[in-house]
Amino acid sequence: MPRFSKAVSSLRSSEIRDLMTLASRPDVISFAGGMPGNDLFPVRDVEALFAQLDIRKKQAAFQYGPTPGLPSLLESLQGFLEKKGLPVHENRLLITTGSLQAISLLARAFIDPGDPVLVENPCFIGALSAFKSCGADLRGINVDSEGIAADELDDEVRRMPKAKFLYVTPYFHNPAGLLYSTERKERLIGSLRGRDIPLIEDDAYGDLYFHQEDALRLKPMKAINPEGIDICYTGSFSKILGPGLRLGWMLAPEEIYGKCELIKQSADACSSSYTQVLADEFIRSGLIYPYIEKVRQEYRSRAAGMLAALKRHMPGYVKWNEPRGGFYFWLTLPEGTDSTEILKLSIESGAVFVAGKTFDPAGKKNDTMRLSYCNNSAAEIDEGIPVIAEAVRKVCG
Amino acid sequence: MPRFSKAVSSLRSSEIRDLMTLASRPDVISFAGGMPGNDLFPVRDVEALFAQLDIRKKQAAFQYGPTPGLPSLLESLQGFLEKKGLPVHENRLLITTGSLQAISLLARAFIDPGDPVLVENPCFIGALSAFKSCGADLRGINVDSEGIAADELDDEVRRMPKAKFLYVTPYFHNPAGLLYSTERKERLIGSLRGRDIPLIEDDAYGDLYFHQEDALRLKPMKAINPEGIDICYTGSFSKILGPGLRLGWMLAPEEIYGKCELIKQSADACSSSYTQVLADEFIRSGLIYPYIEKVRQEYRSRAAGMLAALKRHMPGYVKWNEPRGGFYFWLTLPEGTDSTEILKLSIESGAVFVAGKTFDPAGKKNDTMRLSYCNNSAAEIDEGIPVIAEAVRKVCG
Repeated sequence: MPRFSKAVSSLRSSEIRDLMTLASRPDVISFAGGMPGNDLFPVRDVEALFAQLDIRKKQAAFQYGPTPGLPSLLESLQGFLEKKGLPVHENRLLITTGSLQAISLLARAFIDPGDPVLVENPCFIGALSAFKSCGADLRGINVDSEGIAADELDDEVRRMPKAKFLYVTPYFHNPAGLLYSTERKERLIGSLRGRDIPLIEDDAYGDLYFHQEDALRLKPMKAINPEGIDICYTGSFSKILGPGLRLGWMLAPEEIYGKCELIKQSADACSSSYTQVLADEFIRSGLIYPYIEKVRQEYRSRAAGMLAALKRHMPGYVKWNEPRGGFYFWLTLPEGTDSTEILKLSIESGAVFVAGKTFDPAGKKNDTMRLSYCNNSAAEIDEGIPVIAEAVRKVCG
Repeated sequence: MPRFSKAVSSLRSSEIRDLMTLASRPDVISFAGGMPGNDLFPVRDVEALFAQLDIRKKQAAFQYGPTPGLPSLLESLQGFLEKKGLPVHENRLLITTGSLQAISLLARAFIDPGDPVLVENPCFIGALSAFKSCGADLRGINVDSEGIAADELDDEVRRMPKAKFLYVTPYFHNPAGLLYSTERKERLIGSLRGRDIPLIEDDAYGDLYFHQEDALRLKPMKAINPEGIDICYTGSFSKILGPGLRLGWMLAPEEIYGKCELIKQSADACSSSYTQVLADEFIRSGLIYPYIEKVRQEYRSRAAGMLAALKRHMPGYVKWNEPRGGFYFWLTLPEGTDSTEILKLSIESGAVFVAGKTFDPAGKKNDTMRLSYCNNSAAEIDEGIPVIAEAVRKVCG
C-alpha cells in the first residue's frame, strides 16, 4: 500500500474527468464543455507564421527556455497587457502552462493543509481542485448578479483573518456567466485593503465581451492598482488562440512571483518553447486583434441563439443570467431541485450540461445548471435546448 | 507580508536559475548545460509531418485533450516503450509536461513536509528541487562506478523504513554519467523488495547509448518487473526529439497513477496537445528511430573528443568516468578541493562547467565538477578543456 501525502490522500474521484467525458460524448449534443469550438482556431494563420521563421528561431522552439518564459513572448505579452492598463513594469510576468498552472502555483505557494481559502460560490472547478489538492479549507461566498456578495465577504474576512487568499473570476464568471459591476469591485477592494489577504484575479474570459460599453466594468482590479492589496492577476491564451497550446500567465508582485517561479522550476522547468514561439508570433503579427474580434462576434451570436431558445422553451420558473460575454448561461431552478435528476433524463434524450453542485465548494447545492454555448452551432442549440427544457418539466413539473 | 506555505517558505535562491544563466552566457564556452545541441533538432521533418495532417487533426492540436494524454500518442508511445520490454499493459501511462513534471507529481503524491526521501548523491538537481519544494528530508546515498552503494542503501532502508520512495537515474546518470551494472540493479531490487518503499526509475537518457553490447545493463528495472516493489518509470522526449516540446511520461501501477492523474488535472489540465501531435507523428512516421541513431553517433563522437582533451590536458590527479552514453563527464578532484574556486578562474578565462555541490542533496560536497559535451563542437571542446585544466592547476597545484 503506497503511503500518500496527507493533502493527496483525501483526493478521491475526479469530477473534472467525469465532466470531460460527458462533454466529449459523440452521441449527444453537449453544452457541458468550456472549450472553444474547433472550427474557430486560427490554424492556417499560425502554421504560416511558423513557416516563415528563420531556422534559428525554429530550433529555439525545440529547446529549453528560461523558466519565466521566452524573453520575446514576455515582451510582446507585456505590450498586449499594457493595452488593458495593467501595471506590467511594477510587477513581474510569468508564462505558465495554461492559467490553471498559475492558479496551481499560487495554491502551492500559500496553502498548507487546513488553511482557509476564500472562493466564490459557485466557483471554477479547476481552481477548486487546485486548492483541494493542497488541502485547503474552502470557504465559499455567494455571488449575485453584481458579483461576490459584499456583506458576506466582509463577514468572512473578519471571521477568517488568516485566510490565505481570495480567488475570484469577475469577468464572465465560470460558471455563473456574470460580469462584476464597478461598485462591487470597489466594495471587494475595500474589504481586503490592509487585511493581508492577497487577491487572485482570474481574467481568462475578459477579452470575450459582447458590448463595447462594458469597458469600465472590464477594467481589471490589477489595473486599478489599489494600495494595500497584493493582487495576482492571471490570464490565458486558451480563449484567444487555443487551449491546446497550454499557455497562460500571471502578473504578480515581486515576492509572490519569486516563490511561484521557484515552484515552477521544479514543476515543469518551463512552458513549451514551441507553443510560446507560436503565441509570440500571433501577437507580433497583430493577427491576434482581428482574431479576438472575430470570436467575440461568433460567441455573441451563439449566446443570442441560446437566449432565444431558452426563452422559447424553458418553463417560467427557470431563471438565468443574460451573458454580456464569455461562454456560459447559469440556470437557477426552483429551490431544492436536484439538477442531476434533470441531467440523467436529458442525457437519455440526447443533450448534456453540467449540474450545479460541480461548482459548489461544498459539492452540495444542486438547484442550478451550467449551459455553455461556445462549442455549438445554431442548429445544435435549437435542437438541444428543448430536450433539456423537457427534462426540467419532467422533474420540476 | 504574504504568508507562504511551510514547504515553500524555506525555498530561497534558485540554483537552477543560476545554472541556466551560466549555461547560456554568450561570451564563454559552456560545458554547463544539459540541453541537446540546437543544430541536432529534427526541425524540418517535424514541420513537414504537421503540414501533411488533415485540418481536423490540426484543429485538435489547438484544443484541450484528456489529462492522461492524447489517445493516439498514448498508443504510439506504448509501442515505443514495448520495444524496451516495459510492461505497458499491466501499468498505466501518463503523458506529462516533461519528465520533470512526472517527478514533481510523484513528489506531491507522496511527500509531506519532513518526510524522508532516499536519493543518490550526487543527484539530478531538478528532482532535488521537486522534492525540496514539498519539504522532503533528503537522505543522500553515494554512488560509485557501478551504481548506488549497495551496503549504504541497505543501511539507509533499515534506518528509514518510512522513507516515501527511492529516486534513481541508473542509465547515464546526471551528473555522474554512470551506467548501473546488472548486479547493482539486482542488489537495489533486493534492498527494496517487500519494504513498502516505491522506486522512481528515471530513464531520461537511456536511448543515448554508445555501445550495443550494453543492452542488458540498459534494461529498465521496470522491464524486469520484480515482485514486491512499486516501480514508477519516467522518461522524456527531451533528448530524443526536443525539450521545448515539454513532453515526458510516467509508467506506474494503477493506484499511484490515479493520484498523479488527479494532481495533474489541477496542475495544468493536460500537456500541450500541439506538441503531443508532433511527438505522435514523429513516432508513427518511424522517423524517431533513425533520429535517435543519429544523435547517439553524434554524442558518442563529442564524448570521444572530450575524453581525448581531458586525457591530454588534465593533471594526473583528476579522475573521471568514461561515459558509455548520455551527456556527462563527472570529474573528481583531490579531496577537499573547492571546485567553485576553479569555476571562478575558469569563467574569467572563458569556459564554464557546473560545480559539484549543485548536485549534493546537502549542497556541500564540492570536490567534483560536471562537464557536458552535448552542446559543443569539437573545436569548442578543444579550446575549452585546456582553459578548465589550467584553472584546476592554479587551484590544486
